[in-house]
Amino acid sequence: MSRYWSDIVHRLTPYVPGEQPALAHPVKLNTNENPYPPSPAVLTAIRNELGDAAESLRRYPDPTARTLRETVAAHHGLAVEQVFAGNGSDEVLAMTFLALLKHDRPLLFPDITYSFYPTYAQLYEIDYRTVPLDDAFKVRIADYAVPNGGIVFPNPNAPTGHALPLADIEKLVAANPDSVVVIDEAYVDFGAQSAISLIARYPNLLVVHTVSKSRSLAGMRVGFAFGDAALIDALVRVKDSFNSYPLDRVAQVAVTAAYNDDAWFRDTCAKVIAGRERLSAALTALGFDVVPSAANFVFARHAGHDAATLAAKLREREIFVRHFRTPRADQHLRITIGTDAECDTLLAALRELLNT
Amino acid sequence: MSRYWSDIVHRLTPYVPGEQPALAHPVKLNTNENPYPPSPAVLTAIRNELGDAAESLRRYPDPTARTLRETVAAHHGLAVEQVFAGNGSDEVLAMTFLALLKHDRPLLFPDITYSFYPTYAQLYEIDYRTVPLDDAFKVRIADYAVPNGGIVFPNPNAPTGHALPLADIEKLVAANPDSVVVIDEAYVDFGAQSAISLIARYPNLLVVHTVSKSRSLAGMRVGFAFGDAALIDALVRVKDSFNSYPLDRVAQVAVTAAYNDDAWFRDTCAKVIAGRERLSAALTALGFDVVPSAANFVFARHAGHDAATLAAKLREREIFVRHFRTPRADQHLRITIGTDAECDTLLAALRELLNT
Repeated sequence: MSRYWSDIVHRLTPYVPGEQPALAHPVKLNTNENPYPPSPAVLTAIRNELGDAAESLRRYPDPTARTLRETVAAHHGLAVEQVFAGNGSDEVLAMTFLALLKHDRPLLFPDITYSFYPTYAQLYEIDYRTVPLDDAFKVRIADYAVPNGGIVFPNPNAPTGHALPLADIEKLVAANPDSVVVIDEAYVDFGAQSAISLIARYPNLLVVHTVSKSRSLAGMRVGFAFGDAALIDALVRVKDSFNSYPLDRVAQVAVTAAYNDDAWFRDTCAKVIAGRERLSAALTALGFDVVPSAANFVFARHAGHDAATLAAKLREREIFVRHFRTPRADQHLRITIGTDAECDTLLAALRELLNT
Repeated sequence: MSRYWSDIVHRLTPYVPGEQPALAHPVKLNTNENPYPPSPAVLTAIRNELGDAAESLRRYPDPTARTLRETVAAHHGLAVEQVFAGNGSDEVLAMTFLALLKHDRPLLFPDITYSFYPTYAQLYEIDYRTVPLDDAFKVRIADYAVPNGGIVFPNPNAPTGHALPLADIEKLVAANPDSVVVIDEAYVDFGAQSAISLIARYPNLLVVHTVSKSRSLAGMRVGFAFGDAALIDALVRVKDSFNSYPLDRVAQVAVTAAYNDDAWFRDTCAKVIAGRERLSAALTALGFDVVPSAANFVFARHAGHDAATLAAKLREREIFVRHFRTPRADQHLRITIGTDAECDTLLAALRELLNT
């Protein structure tokens, strides 16, 4: 607290990211990173960029990230004017909240969802209401049929992993022609249907992606929004009123290269999906209730064991999973899909803990 | 325009960054980049980071940029709690406007200054007043002796290059104990005195730096704020309500390495300063009035030639300088100090243009 702070700073409850343990070899299943590395083409692209450092790093990057946006637009069958690029999907979402979700009517999002949403709403003083997930932790489209100034949720949802079919998303977007519906598809590549195919028909749909999960590039901080050019223009106006150059030169070439290696991307996603099915089965065998997941994590509880205690005991073994101290979710663990070896280490530890 | 835009988006006048020409070999003297490359240690650090890509790029970076902040804190004789790191000084300034300069009383800044300031004020709905520079394009401290909710200007100022002595800065900070005074030192390393030495005594002083100029790393997007821990804490609260991880892994190691090669930094600054004195003398010989500059650019006018026309004619020759269509500054050119060869190309073109 300080008299120099603006009123808004006094009122903020900042987001708390998952722990980044400073250990040599943690089993790190707490922040939904990809257990497999990015395409080798990414490293080649970065080395090429550095090859002429005199003409590269000393110069500002392209503020519009044109080449990167063209590459990603082509990948998704969109026009470049339908693509916005930002410093991770967190920055893209923050700008979306200010540009497209701040209206007189309240913004709607689920009660159990990405915990950054209420923080963005607070930062920009946006009125919001949370809509409870049903008892199976599913988003129920019918519950959003109320006057609103916007709707946002992840599909698949986080931290539950549950995905809605595309038909449900379309129903929601069609039912809200006066509001922007934001589908945060951070985890879509692990088994859900993308809503990008609806963009041509719905000017009120914004789809948000990240390279932090399925592209194995959490370390590079790049995310995208896809939508009608008028929605993208709003984001550009906010970006150019905040920071003209959010993506550095290395990030732009790295992510461009990642989108140009589709085979690597598909292979990595397939491995993560196989790992998820394997881990889900093993957790179920240990007595966990596992929410069916279309993401790169599972959301699981064990009726006989307190989740916070389990998380703490795993942490003592340098195994990190995410536990949220929030109503309805505080008896679940959110476990990122690691390599098979990492999942086996987790399962061995859980077997021990459940027997004691 | 779109009915989906929030009110604020309709009202914004975004900042326009200097042109990034897509030419093979432009003489690019329009965005104050450094003509000399960054330390070779920067490239080594990046290559080392990429060496173990499986454990690097797929993982989130340190959200607190601790190692980088410790390095920079030690460089300036500060505690790590007195250092904030962001995605370029533009992001740092944007967060500063929201966190520390939004109050009931108006924010003050010069009428001729960094043109992003009014844009930030608009974005965050901050009331502001501009204070005219004197006729020699100098900031006059006495003119800021009015009730205010904060004061911000660059020292040296941009686009004029004029620097205030440290004693003047201290007078201003001491005279405004109830407001935060932000000194934007983007260009300080080229010949002005930093106000960092005052931080221990003034809890209302915030000093902003960038690696885009004197560290030759515009392409990497990193900036800093230095000040009392309570001011830094306000910035951290805003950052963690917006984007937890604004600095990617490559940027963090690159900039850490740059601060660890002080000899390279000093040598580069000395070369730019020598280039500035050489260019200033040559422009004066051609009949230009050159504002005495402590930055890596000069602000110059020629009584016999319209600035916009000169800029346009230089552009035809693929020589880029910055021209601002703003009152009082629209007969000046802002020219970045290039290599001696680049400055000679500019001077040869000007000789031609002035004789026709």
